[in-house]
Amino acid sequence: MSRVFNFSAGPAALPEPVLRRAAAEMLDWHGSGMSVMEMSHRGKEFMSIAAKAEADLRELLAVPANYEVLFMQGGAIAENAIVPMNMLRGHAGADYVDTGEWSQRSLKEAQKYGRVNVAASGAAGGYTSIPPRDTWRLDPEAGYVHICSNETIGGVQYHFVPDTGAVPLVADVSSEILSRPMDVSKFGLLYGGAQKNIGPAGLTIVIVREDLLGGALPCTPSAFDYAVVAEHGSMFNTPPTYAIYIAGLVFEWLKERGGLPAMAEHNARKAAVLYDFLDQTSFYESRVARDCRSLMNVPFHLKNPALDAAFLKGAEARGLVQLKGHRLVGGMRASIYNAMPLEGVQALVAFMQDFEREHG
Amino acid sequence: MSRVFNFSAGPAALPEPVLRRAAAEMLDWHGSGMSVMEMSHRGKEFMSIAAKAEADLRELLAVPANYEVLFMQGGAIAENAIVPMNMLRGHAGADYVDTGEWSQRSLKEAQKYGRVNVAASGAAGGYTSIPPRDTWRLDPEAGYVHICSNETIGGVQYHFVPDTGAVPLVADVSSEILSRPMDVSKFGLLYGGAQKNIGPAGLTIVIVREDLLGGALPCTPSAFDYAVVAEHGSMFNTPPTYAIYIAGLVFEWLKERGGLPAMAEHNARKAAVLYDFLDQTSFYESRVARDCRSLMNVPFHLKNPALDAAFLKGAEARGLVQLKGHRLVGGMRASIYNAMPLEGVQALVAFMQDFEREHG
Repeated sequence: MSRVFNFSAGPAALPEPVLRRAAAEMLDWHGSGMSVMEMSHRGKEFMSIAAKAEADLRELLAVPANYEVLFMQGGAIAENAIVPMNMLRGHAGADYVDTGEWSQRSLKEAQKYGRVNVAASGAAGGYTSIPPRDTWRLDPEAGYVHICSNETIGGVQYHFVPDTGAVPLVADVSSEILSRPMDVSKFGLLYGGAQKNIGPAGLTIVIVREDLLGGALPCTPSAFDYAVVAEHGSMFNTPPTYAIYIAGLVFEWLKERGGLPAMAEHNARKAAVLYDFLDQTSFYESRVARDCRSLMNVPFHLKNPALDAAFLKGAEARGLVQLKGHRLVGGMRASIYNAMPLEGVQALVAFMQDFEREHG
Repeated sequence: MSRVFNFSAGPAALPEPVLRRAAAEMLDWHGSGMSVMEMSHRGKEFMSIAAKAEADLRELLAVPANYEVLFMQGGAIAENAIVPMNMLRGHAGADYVDTGEWSQRSLKEAQKYGRVNVAASGAAGGYTSIPPRDTWRLDPEAGYVHICSNETIGGVQYHFVPDTGAVPLVADVSSEILSRPMDVSKFGLLYGGAQKNIGPAGLTIVIVREDLLGGALPCTPSAFDYAVVAEHGSMFNTPPTYAIYIAGLVFEWLKERGGLPAMAEHNARKAAVLYDFLDQTSFYESRVARDCRSLMNVPFHLKNPALDAAFLKGAEARGLVQLKGHRLVGGMRASIYNAMPLEGVQALVAFMQDFEREHG
C-alpha cells in the first residue's frame, strides 16, 4: 500500500490515524460486537459517540452555550435553500456578498424564498479579492447578511469578520471551518459540508444562535427546520451516523494535535511554502489579491496552459493527485486542508521546481 | 472480537463480508492510494464506484429503463416533504393509506404542501393489518397514492401491490427494498432510507418514472428537486460518497448470493422460524394479522410484560441485541433484514424457548 498526497477540494484527504482507527474498529466498536454503521442511532453506543463528537466540536471552536450545534444532511448546497427557509424570519429579504461561484449559487437559490440584495460583488475584479467592508451597501431591514468565508473554487478568503450590526451574519464556512480559531459569537449562523476539514461527505454542520430559531417558512420540510432538528438533538430524522463517527475521530485528532491554534499555525506554514514559491517564479502565477488569499485552496496557473496536461501527468507520477483546477478558473488548484501534511506541500513545490526547470 | 446478532430496526446489521472488505480497503482503494472517503466525487475512481452501484441496483431490482435511480440525502423522513414537493405536479392533493406510524408521519408532513385524503386507515384495528384494496376511497384527481410498504414499527407489510389505475403509486420502501423481488413498473416512485437493507444511514434511494419529473413546487430546494438531481446524475450536491460505496458492496454481496429471489427465500425461511414458534407458544404473542405479517420486522410481546427487562438482559448476555420494541408498540421487535443470518433467528428462538422454560 502506498498513500498519495491528495489535493482534492472535497471530498478531501483525511488524517491517516483516523482512517487506521476506523479500519480497526470496523467490525467491532469498543467490544460492542457491532460496526458503528450497524448501531441504532438511539442506542447507548451511538448516543455516546454523537455526544462526544458534539462536545469536542464545541470545545474546539469554543462554541458559546447559546448556540445549537446541529448534525444535518444535504451539504452546503442544500443549505443554500435551508438557510433562507429558516433565517428570513418574517423579513422580506436578505443581503448577500458575492465573492465567487459559491456565494453566487447561494444567492441564486435564496431568490426562491425572498428578495436578495447583492450588497457587494467581486465580479468586476474577476473574483480575485473580497470587497472591503466599507463598500458594502447593506439593507438594515434584511433578515441576515450572507457571506462565503472561503471560496473553494476562486481561492479568496475573508481574513476579517465583517461587522453587520444588529443583522445576523450567516457564513458558509464549508472549506474553512476548523482550519483556524473563529469567534462564533460574531455570527448568527455558520454552516458547512463536512467533506473538507471534518469528515466524509453526507454530513452538514450547522451552528446557530438559539434566539434565531423558530421562524421557519411554512414550506420548510420538518427535517430541515432548525428548531425541529435542535429540539430532537439532531435525531428528528436518522442522522448520518457513520459520518458523525468519523467526524468525531477527526475532532479527537485535532485536539491531540493542539486544537485550532495549532492548526492555524500548521496551515499558515503550509500556505506560505506554496505562496512564497509562487511569488518568486515567473513560470507559474497566483491571480488572487495577496490580502485575500485562501489558506485552504490555492489556485495557480502555468503561464503556458499548453503544459497543463504534462504538469498533471508528472504530478500524478509523483503521487501528487487531484490538482486539476475547477473548470470555471482553469489551471491548477492545491487544496491543503488540515489533513494535508507539510511534506505534501513541500513535495508539490519540489515537483513544481523540477517541472519548471524541465519546461521553463 | 466477538460479533453479536443485531436485531436493530435501523441502522441495522450489515453483511460481515462487506464490513471486512471496507476495512481492508479503508486506506487504499484498489491501489489509488486513497480511502473512498477521500476521493473527489468527480474523480474517475469514485465515478466508477457510483456507476457500478447504480448498475447493480438496477440489475437487482430489474429497474425499467424509463426510471431514474437517484442517490439522495435526508432519509425517508426528509422524503416525506420532498415527495409532495415533487409529485403533486399541479394537483391539489394526494391520497394516503394510513397503516401505522410511518404512513402517518408521511401524511402529516404532506399536509404542508397540499390536501391529504386518507383513503383508508388501519387505526380502528390498532394497525395490525393492511386495509384491503377494495375498501380504499381514492380520489381520481389525486397527484399520487402513497403507501408505506412495510411499517417498521408496527410490523405490518403489504403482500400485494395495490392497483391505483392512472394515478401514480408512491411507496416508502425503506424497510423492505431489496428483501424480495418487486415489480418496479407498477410504481410511479419508490423511496427509502438506506439504513435497513442497503447500507449506512445518510443515503436515500429514490426510483422514479421519468415522465413524473419536472413539476416540482417553486419552493422545492434545488438539491431536492428530482429533475435537477436526475439531470446531474445525483451529483448536483456532493453525494454521500462513502455510503454509496458501502451500498455498492452490499449490492455485490446480494448478487453473489443469488440476488433478490434468493433473498426472498432466505427471508421467508427466517421469518417462518420465528412466526412458527410464536404461533405455538402461549408465553409470547404476535398481534399482527397473519396475512399482513412483516418478513422484516417482527414485533412480539411477552404475555407478562413484567418479564420484559429480564428477557432483554438474558438476550443480551447471549449476544442477541437491540431487541427492545418501539415505545409506541412496546414489547420486543426482531428486525431480520437481509444481513441477519438464519443462525441469528435460530439463536433467538432457542433463547426464547429457554426463557419460557425458566419463567413460564
